[in-house]
Amino acid sequence: MNDLAYDPDEPIVALATAWGESALAVVRTSGAGSIDRVAEIFSRPSALREAAGNTLHHGRLLDNGEVVDEVIVSVFRAPASYTGQESVEIACHGSIPGITRVVSLLKAHGFRDAGPGEFTLRAFLNRKMDLTQAEAVREIVSSRTARAHALALHRLGGAVHDRIDSAKQRITKLASTIEIGLDYPEEEVPGEIADALPDLRSIRGELAALVDTYRTGKLYQEGVRVALCGRTNAGKSSLFNLFAREERSIVSEVHGTTRDYIEAWVVIEGIPMNLYDTAGLRSSLDPVEAEGIRRSEQIIEHADIIVYIVDAETGLTPQDGPFLDRHQCIRVWNKVDLAATQEPAGFIRVSAATGEGFDRLQRALLDEAAKGGPAASGQVVIDSLRQKELLDRCVAALDHIAEGIDEGMPGDAVALDVREALDCLGEITGEVTSADILNTMFAGFCVGK
Amino acid sequence: MNDLAYDPDEPIVALATAWGESALAVVRTSGAGSIDRVAEIFSRPSALREAAGNTLHHGRLLDNGEVVDEVIVSVFRAPASYTGQESVEIACHGSIPGITRVVSLLKAHGFRDAGPGEFTLRAFLNRKMDLTQAEAVREIVSSRTARAHALALHRLGGAVHDRIDSAKQRITKLASTIEIGLDYPEEEVPGEIADALPDLRSIRGELAALVDTYRTGKLYQEGVRVALCGRTNAGKSSLFNLFAREERSIVSEVHGTTRDYIEAWVVIEGIPMNLYDTAGLRSSLDPVEAEGIRRSEQIIEHADIIVYIVDAETGLTPQDGPFLDRHQCIRVWNKVDLAATQEPAGFIRVSAATGEGFDRLQRALLDEAAKGGPAASGQVVIDSLRQKELLDRCVAALDHIAEGIDEGMPGDAVALDVREALDCLGEITGEVTSADILNTMFAGFCVGK
Repeated sequence: MNDLAYDPDEPIVALATAWGESALAVVRTSGAGSIDRVAEIFSRPSALREAAGNTLHHGRLLDNGEVVDEVIVSVFRAPASYTGQESVEIACHGSIPGITRVVSLLKAHGFRDAGPGEFTLRAFLNRKMDLTQAEAVREIVSSRTARAHALALHRLGGAVHDRIDSAKQRITKLASTIEIGLDYPEEEVPGEIADALPDLRSIRGELAALVDTYRTGKLYQEGVRVALCGRTNAGKSSLFNLFAREERSIVSEVHGTTRDYIEAWVVIEGIPMNLYDTAGLRSSLDPVEAEGIRRSEQIIEHADIIVYIVDAETGLTPQDGPFLDRHQCIRVWNKVDLAATQEPAGFIRVSAATGEGFDRLQRALLDEAAKGGPAASGQVVIDSLRQKELLDRCVAALDHIAEGIDEGMPGDAVALDVREALDCLGEITGEVTSADILNTMFAGFCVGK
Repeated sequence: MNDLAYDPDEPIVALATAWGESALAVVRTSGAGSIDRVAEIFSRPSALREAAGNTLHHGRLLDNGEVVDEVIVSVFRAPASYTGQESVEIACHGSIPGITRVVSLLKAHGFRDAGPGEFTLRAFLNRKMDLTQAEAVREIVSSRTARAHALALHRLGGAVHDRIDSAKQRITKLASTIEIGLDYPEEEVPGEIADALPDLRSIRGELAALVDTYRTGKLYQEGVRVALCGRTNAGKSSLFNLFAREERSIVSEVHGTTRDYIEAWVVIEGIPMNLYDTAGLRSSLDPVEAEGIRRSEQIIEHADIIVYIVDAETGLTPQDGPFLDRHQCIRVWNKVDLAATQEPAGFIRVSAATGEGFDRLQRALLDEAAKGGPAASGQVVIDSLRQKELLDRCVAALDHIAEGIDEGMPGDAVALDVREALDCLGEITGEVTSADILNTMFAGFCVGK
């Protein structure tokens, strides 16, 4: 652990709440001497120095006698804190210059800026949580929907950790049986090896099932990108507005200009969908419009789901053909309130004006998005590429062990695969890990966490 | 107080920190039964119910057994809380759906959404602060610079309150002397009335000086709007960029498109300046560009300071004349690195490319902005139009009293002015106030404060 990007004992400081005007802001510190250092600049220093853990203290922060802010200070004593270290949290007024001043004052008194995820890294190093829980912290903060939040909370509670731990124990138990059996084939143990195989397969099946949840985890955490496409006047914008109107759970503002694309987050049955209203698909000599069309093409290229909208009044034209041939789309026959035309096969009849057919369109989007199946309540779902890749490696090692048994390979060869399987699991929880991995992992966190 | 917009005892809830993804968010509650209500949904209910004030408790929020979040709960017991009431603050993960869920859960357990400023209103009603301090809370949160923050903190500390209180006591003392003197002119007291006059004038002078600080308070709190104007290619954008580069204290992002105006906040010696880079002043047939010019004209109309930039290479042209005749401007002779031309009288020589003359331009902006003089350290400065208008009325009443004494008016007439003067001061601190005034005042607060 000597190559950690951060010294894990130094006193650190960061704003823990969101940056902006608000009633309150919380500035978080942790590390050796945090309480004494804050006491130096607090109006009632001895109250802090003598404070029991888990207590609150009202007073003023002072910079050479000048009041910096009126604050409430929370004192945490090791190991009963988030990081497991001595820690102080300062609730000050949520004023931009005020927060800046409080952080500067703390930095002038021996604290340094915390790096991304540094508080959680310390919590991991001090065994307050394992790596799957540390990752869950980040996933909780960045979750966009209640469902993703609940799945990540479940991981924070140790759901993944428990699965991994139980698999590890079972593999360890099987390992000695298998290794002994293979090394002493003349003795009376081969029956036990055969008995071990079903157990090995059951562990393998459980871990492979956990791998499969990654798609679901990513779906709920990151959502899908949905591009609304079609010719000019097909009714893309009115369909976009229908989503904005019907789905009250919009989580980000629509922005952009008429020449640009606009986007919105909507949530359908817990799945966040980033909806893009693209420019009409036609060539244009106007350079600004041409740029808009170019951007739309990029959006379409990166979309998970494409919705192609055709105006029921004009019907399909030769211009629609090439696009529909090239892309797999959910096809919408729009403006059915205006035209009694019959939709071609595979089209969903919709009226953005009256809302007719909107439920069918939603269902089609859901089916397309949740091909892997929605998450069941209480299900353990992973949402970390790191965990998925380690699980994949572990499953491959278990397969190799099974092959080795079948082929009667020597025990020391099989032992290498057992080691690999256990190492992968150990790396998931962080029992076996390198400074490099930790540095990379925590760099993706927000500062203050 | 029966017409208050809010019932001041009901349990209320609001997010107190800024809305956004972050390590922590704090949800604040206050009102009768807050602790018991939160205990109902806390994993360790008796720990909360039996908690001493000013203590922290780690646990989980539960919704019918399902974990809603892992939290740290702060317990405050009346009267030792911000509002003076029993109060609970919940520090949860700073996740958008998580915060939403925590607030919903609390609302399902007897809390209602707090109105704007409702926590501070309760603090006022429970005599934790007077109205000048309550207004200071809002001013602290919305302050844009360290200087405005410090001035507002000084008011929160009671600086305005103390001035008003002392003036009130002195007026009350003088009042009895004056009224007795006027009512019994035959008796041996008129000398005392004459003695009272200098004292009255001194109080009047102090209050009038406080009124004068309003311009300074507003300057530091709200700042000034500065429009950069000039013909196309005069170098407006490069001068704008020079400010952005040299003034590290930019507090808001530059935004907009090339066809629109761009703006930035810079802070020069504690004074926030909102800088606008306007479109070039020329007529245009392009409708988009014409719209940009129209917006620029609106900005110029509402600017506190106009900076007019002339390209030293081309010099003054007939197009510059009308604008300079119509507006009072700080005049800039730009691009002096490229042209050795002599600037006309009243122009500041600047090179946006090399930074030459930037200090002179800054000084000119400061002089123009701070005509009322900058705030001295420790000075009591008001920043509330409400307070200013009441002080104006009080000063007018004091003038009327002095006239009454001069003209030998009857005591009961003077007594009306004394009553008016004292009422104004009482209304500033909130001793004398109506529900209407409170409703209006606190409506300007943010929710959660």
